[in-house]
Amino acid sequence: MEHELFVVALGGNALLAPSQKGSTEEQMRNAERTCEQLSSLLKPEFHLVITHGNGPQVGNITLQQELACAEVPPLSLDACVAMSEGSMGHFLQMAMLNALRRRRYRRYVVTCITQVVVRPDDPAFKRPTKPVGQFYTQEQAKTLMAQRAWTMREDAKRGWRRVVPSPKPLKVIQRHMIKTQVLFGDIVICVGGGGVPVVQLPDKTYKAVEAVIDKDLASANLASSIRADCLIILTAVPNVCLNYKTPQEKTLAQVTTGELRRHLDEGHFAEGSMRPKIEAALYHLANEGRRVIITDIESLPKALQGKAGTHIARYQEP
Amino acid sequence: MEHELFVVALGGNALLAPSQKGSTEEQMRNAERTCEQLSSLLKPEFHLVITHGNGPQVGNITLQQELACAEVPPLSLDACVAMSEGSMGHFLQMAMLNALRRRRYRRYVVTCITQVVVRPDDPAFKRPTKPVGQFYTQEQAKTLMAQRAWTMREDAKRGWRRVVPSPKPLKVIQRHMIKTQVLFGDIVICVGGGGVPVVQLPDKTYKAVEAVIDKDLASANLASSIRADCLIILTAVPNVCLNYKTPQEKTLAQVTTGELRRHLDEGHFAEGSMRPKIEAALYHLANEGRRVIITDIESLPKALQGKAGTHIARYQEP
Repeated sequence: MEHELFVVALGGNALLAPSQKGSTEEQMRNAERTCEQLSSLLKPEFHLVITHGNGPQVGNITLQQELACAEVPPLSLDACVAMSEGSMGHFLQMAMLNALRRRRYRRYVVTCITQVVVRPDDPAFKRPTKPVGQFYTQEQAKTLMAQRAWTMREDAKRGWRRVVPSPKPLKVIQRHMIKTQVLFGDIVICVGGGGVPVVQLPDKTYKAVEAVIDKDLASANLASSIRADCLIILTAVPNVCLNYKTPQEKTLAQVTTGELRRHLDEGHFAEGSMRPKIEAALYHLANEGRRVIITDIESLPKALQGKAGTHIARYQEP
Repeated sequence: MEHELFVVALGGNALLAPSQKGSTEEQMRNAERTCEQLSSLLKPEFHLVITHGNGPQVGNITLQQELACAEVPPLSLDACVAMSEGSMGHFLQMAMLNALRRRRYRRYVVTCITQVVVRPDDPAFKRPTKPVGQFYTQEQAKTLMAQRAWTMREDAKRGWRRVVPSPKPLKVIQRHMIKTQVLFGDIVICVGGGGVPVVQLPDKTYKAVEAVIDKDLASANLASSIRADCLIILTAVPNVCLNYKTPQEKTLAQVTTGELRRHLDEGHFAEGSMRPKIEAALYHLANEGRRVIITDIESLPKALQGKAGTHIARYQEP
């Protein structure tokens, strides 16, 4: 059988909506719903890798580290990302197993704790931009910056917040095992929260760093390295739009990388929202990627038939 | 090349000594030391699965859940076990990668979030015995038992503590993937803390349960299901002893399952200490296991040459 290999990147909100606090029941229910919505990808001829964000979850974990710091030493951000990969992997893995069992499909699901190499000289380390965790008063912020060597930034309305670097992913260390496993027909959950960032030292050993990797970019990097046939980036809207939320709004159905890059340079895509997804798509297609779909999870079944979503390819299909 | 498949079960203290609080630096340093001590197993002809306990780590995580509960909903114990698999997997995985890189061995390491099926009618569910987390006052305990439906038990000296069931492992859901991966030459870290316990419902779907599985028994179950050549259970002492810490103390070097069962029945092995390790060894050897070694990590290199440790086999070697 000819297999197609899909890498699907879920948003962090797929497991926790902004209105939710993050209980076990909420996260498990969301995982069950998400995996049911992915069921159009559960075909014997499809190989499947699932990646996911971890924004609200790692926010909760770092908050727990701080609130309990008098009793338990707070773990560093890399360990918190790994913890979120553990709990979210557990929820998603069980929900996906259940989706399979309900359909009497005999496939297995495994979650890999994923480490992603970044450059020690990535310019992001000089300019931390990614906010993590809770807001603090100026007083508290001063103490934390002194005691913990955090970089913090003031948000005019809400107070002070830690910011960490967001370096570019260079390679996913566990990519070979992810590929082996998925080619055996198992569903692999990995690159949670963009993966745990590590740098390689001159003696070739690795060291974790307190940073956060963009999960779409890390997913695109993985998809290229395992030669996925299609990278699907799930987001909150069914299509990429030009002039988004203006009277001139125009949805994109099919677009080439050349056209998309032009739209990107023209400033059509919002920072921290659609822009990183477009950058991830372009990265993947510039690195031997074949096809990228950007859509929302509700439109996924139609998008797989080419009837919904934004489809991006290197060249115009004939 | 003829390969030998080893499953090595590390104690929870391998990553955190009782005297330590559990900072990132402590856990990473311990992981580095542990992986260096496992280096006698890093031979091309050895396939390697590493399992580990999580006692102090999951204790810290559950404590953080409670101390932060006004702000963040405390996750259930199964999710806390998965979180500990994430952080400990990250530390061990990086330390093991570094041990390999220092030796210029080109092998990879992956951590699997592991779920282990237990029987919903396991008698342990009627008799929770395994203490988890911190101690509470009688007042607090009453509130927690009412609000959270916890079972709690009083320790004469230290107060009230939550107890959870410790059901027997039936099967490791991810055993096939663990076997595939290890046969490809990669080192797999799994069954952390005994794995996340789940029950299978009548419709074949899975549901997590708040319980703790003995990590040696879960490791023995995994070792049997992947047909390991040797299960190594690492503990604090170089040998299993009869009449331990008495003038009649006798160390065991070679022993058959028949002899060992007799010693067990005679009450030689302390509950919660050596006894579960002996039970795990006997379980493995009764389920097609070939060889079990019980020793401490310092004696491991000699034990692999048959010159240290307690070696257990189904029959006396000729």
